[in-house]
Amino acid sequence: MHIDLNSDLGESLGAWHMGDDAAMLGIVTSANVACGFHAGDAAGILATLRAARERGVSVGAHVAYPDLAGFGRRNMDVASADLVADVIYQIGALQGLAKAAGTRVAYVKPHGALYNTIAHDERQARDVITAIRAIDPSLALVVLAGSPLAQWAADAGLRVVAEAFADRAYTAQGTLVSRREPGAVLHDAEEVARRMLQLVREGTVQAIDGSTTRVRADSICVHGDSPGAVAMARAVREALEREGVALRAFA
Amino acid sequence: MHIDLNSDLGESLGAWHMGDDAAMLGIVTSANVACGFHAGDAAGILATLRAARERGVSVGAHVAYPDLAGFGRRNMDVASADLVADVIYQIGALQGLAKAAGTRVAYVKPHGALYNTIAHDERQARDVITAIRAIDPSLALVVLAGSPLAQWAADAGLRVVAEAFADRAYTAQGTLVSRREPGAVLHDAEEVARRMLQLVREGTVQAIDGSTTRVRADSICVHGDSPGAVAMARAVREALEREGVALRAFA
Amino acid sequence: MHIDLNSDLGESLGAWHMGDDAAMLGIVTSANVACGFHAGDAAGILATLRAARERGVSVGAHVAYPDLAGFGRRNMDVASADLVADVIYQIGALQGLAKAAGTRVAYVKPHGALYNTIAHDERQARDVITAIRAIDPSLALVVLAGSPLAQWAADAGLRVVAEAFADRAYTAQGTLVSRREPGAVLHDAEEVARRMLQLVREGTVQAIDGSTTRVRADSICVHGDSPGAVAMARAVREALEREGVALRAFA
Amino acid sequence: MHIDLNSDLGESLGAWHMGDDAAMLGIVTSANVACGFHAGDAAGILATLRAARERGVSVGAHVAYPDLAGFGRRNMDVASADLVADVIYQIGALQGLAKAAGTRVAYVKPHGALYNTIAHDERQARDVITAIRAIDPSLALVVLAGSPLAQWAADAGLRVVAEAFADRAYTAQGTLVSRREPGAVLHDAEEVARRMLQLVREGTVQAIDGSTTRVRADSICVHGDSPGAVAMARAVREALEREGVALRAFA
Repeated sequence: MHIDLNSDLGESLGAWHMGDDAAMLGIVTSANVACGFHAGDAAGILATLRAARERGVSVGAHVAYPDLAGFGRRNMDVASADLVADVIYQIGALQGLAKAAGTRVAYVKPHGALYNTIAHDERQARDVITAIRAIDPSLALVVLAGSPLAQWAADAGLRVVAEAFADRAYTAQGTLVSRREPGAVLHDAEEVARRMLQLVREGTVQAIDGSTTRVRADSICVHGDSPGAVAMARAVREALEREGVALRAFA
Repeated sequence: MHIDLNSDLGESLGAWHMGDDAAMLGIVTSANVACGFHAGDAAGILATLRAARERGVSVGAHVAYPDLAGFGRRNMDVASADLVADVIYQIGALQGLAKAAGTRVAYVKPHGALYNTIAHDERQARDVITAIRAIDPSLALVVLAGSPLAQWAADAGLRVVAEAFADRAYTAQGTLVSRREPGAVLHDAEEVARRMLQLVREGTVQAIDGSTTRVRADSICVHGDSPGAVAMARAVREALEREGVALRAFA
Repeated sequence: MHIDLNSDLGESLGAWHMGDDAAMLGIVTSANVACGFHAGDAAGILATLRAARERGVSVGAHVAYPDLAGFGRRNMDVASADLVADVIYQIGALQGLAKAAGTRVAYVKPHGALYNTIAHDERQARDVITAIRAIDPSLALVVLAGSPLAQWAADAGLRVVAEAFADRAYTAQGTLVSRREPGAVLHDAEEVARRMLQLVREGTVQAIDGSTTRVRADSICVHGDSPGAVAMARAVREALEREGVALRAFA
Repeated sequence: MHIDLNSDLGESLGAWHMGDDAAMLGIVTSANVACGFHAGDAAGILATLRAARERGVSVGAHVAYPDLAGFGRRNMDVASADLVADVIYQIGALQGLAKAAGTRVAYVKPHGALYNTIAHDERQARDVITAIRAIDPSLALVVLAGSPLAQWAADAGLRVVAEAFADRAYTAQGTLVSRREPGAVLHDAEEVARRMLQLVREGTVQAIDGSTTRVRADSICVHGDSPGAVAMARAVREALEREGVALRAFA
């Protein structure tokens, strides 16, 4: 039994720091590295990529809408010609920095509003798929477990990696409870660790209504943007390892 | 006898158009394509790269300081860690788009203030050289003919391509007359064409003081940002071809 | 009988030029001046403001989403705290430049996607209204004739100015025909001039289905981003003046 | 006896936090508030301005070069037309937000590389002075004590406020020791507090060579970008108050 742990890294910007990349690179097996559109300056990204190589952590392109002020979290109605090219641009930039750092980009994980939008919006989903196929069809695409995007990407010949979110509640249908709902975000590290163990072992999580729902995931997303988040990520890793689950990058 | 003609392309930005890329791709043999830092949005860059591939025009990365408002023409004191990473980022982004367009990046030509600075400033010059070597040491570097940069880059193992400027006056020492001096910029297409013919045939140009000075160049830079500039570029090309000089990309 | 003519100006950006501000300032009575979020650099805006003062043209703040790459034409889901503050920031910046140019900001006209969104989206509409009231409640708000925004703004105590679009077709209900529909944009200057004369005289336009529909407008929006657009704007002005309609800023 | 304490605030950007504005607004009497060019988003700036008004802290425009990636710390060769307009734009934007927050901009303090450059570079200094006079000649200008800028600004009719830096070493000539020199930055809060007490009482500081040098300052700049910096700022304030020095905004 094995699983991948992924997290968002490289999100500092010039004088502004975000997250504890060094700590997280000791915990996760895959690093979603910012590409400069929602976060990340080139020098900071390069430093994160070098650290990822040193720790043997797999690297993905964390592509986003062009929106530093909104951290890529705001929906933007980007036309297809722009979205395709913007995604290629970001992957290419990260590939260049990865080469300089002695590593390579193994997958793509869209960020924030783009991630949420393409999980369900077919037009933008196909734009991202088109971009990946145009620059490197061997790149895997990390998708929300259970989303329509998984099928669209697979149909287009991409390798699809489904992910679950460690600290999020699920509905009985296996979808994420909206952040606007009470109980959507879990804060207890022990509980989160237990849930992820069940996810890996049984392919299920306990839904917010108490029922058991199927969630098939090849990777678990953990956060690292606060000391509490890092501690939770570490708890998940330790619980999995303690129970004999190997942590291994999918890529 | 042969020579390369290069020009700056892909410099539109969203709703703002600049230059006549289609016309220039029918004239030049090498296209210095903007990388998004001084000009160029990803979709526009991609369109220019596709057109370059169709016309068989060689592609270079026109890397710059991060300064859209100043079009990369303002000196910026960028620290080495940032400059190295910014240049890698831009080359990588263009490589990604070039791959999607069915072509590849063959060389690097810094733009504007960065071009002028590294011609003489060793610290920033070495940063650009370091960046190129880190991402792809086979990339040629286009430099100002006669500048110290040529030697620094050659010493570092890069292929160096010296360029002359079609519409600029030269001093008796073979350097460019500053734009602040009268007569620094030439406007007569016939005269410019004659001068470039002499440059290619004899390796000399007539200096502003009437003397003849040596300028060794593998490429000639022509502009395309106005109808007059396109006409001048075409005149240079036609004069060269008429006299049996082959137009051929250096890369 | 009198009417206002307004147009979008100050939309150049650094090395990129857009529109013929000098020509348009000889035609219109109100200038919607870019504030740097979708277009406009400070020096260019200042130059446009000085020219507006010299020509006696009224000035409005053409506020927008923060999106240079998309020219403010892409829908963005900006949170209220950000939208309110972004609009205040833009108006304030333009007020400062207007003061330096010897003029003042008399009204606000949102641009592009923000304009279209707040015509119907109450949440974002109220954010823009809140921003205007916070910085200067005496600023008029230019709105799409017939849109719900007119009522929301009036209820909040703002002076509301309804505008019609010279080159756009109208439905029988008095709303704009979507640009995606055939016939949505008119290209014949004579026809446009005739239509606007009818609008001013009778408060009606001929709808796309041939019926006559009521459109009450205090201002007519004309474009100036191409030689053809400038010619059409001039034709509209001349037709109105010829028939005794005075051109007069509403502010 | 009284003195002003000033600090840089409002320097967060979207998702990125910087400094502890709430704590600093309980310590300083003047807040240099970012204007969006080196740091600060409109909503964050507005929140800082509201807090400044609540605490009765005076507000200044912390104008900068347009360089988010470099936090305004990189020298940029900005042309006069651009620099004048950029400074007006920033002051105007902050005035607008200040009005919405129920306060007003009382002074201008350039930031980072712009601050350092205009202390000695007459061309850029005159551009900043021109900008201030164009938007509001009653705005005070905070300058490095002992710099030529003080005279240029006074000659132009501006109110000039000289400032000293709490945590910096001074030469025997009363200028700042370069940060590149050892001992340039002081880290002991007690020592810093003692030095500032001497500065206020006697108009002198002990220079790095042990001599006593004259430094005439109306304001003391303290930092707030780390818990240690906040503690040092508080120590300076408490030492001054304990010895009967009143803390009072100059504006």
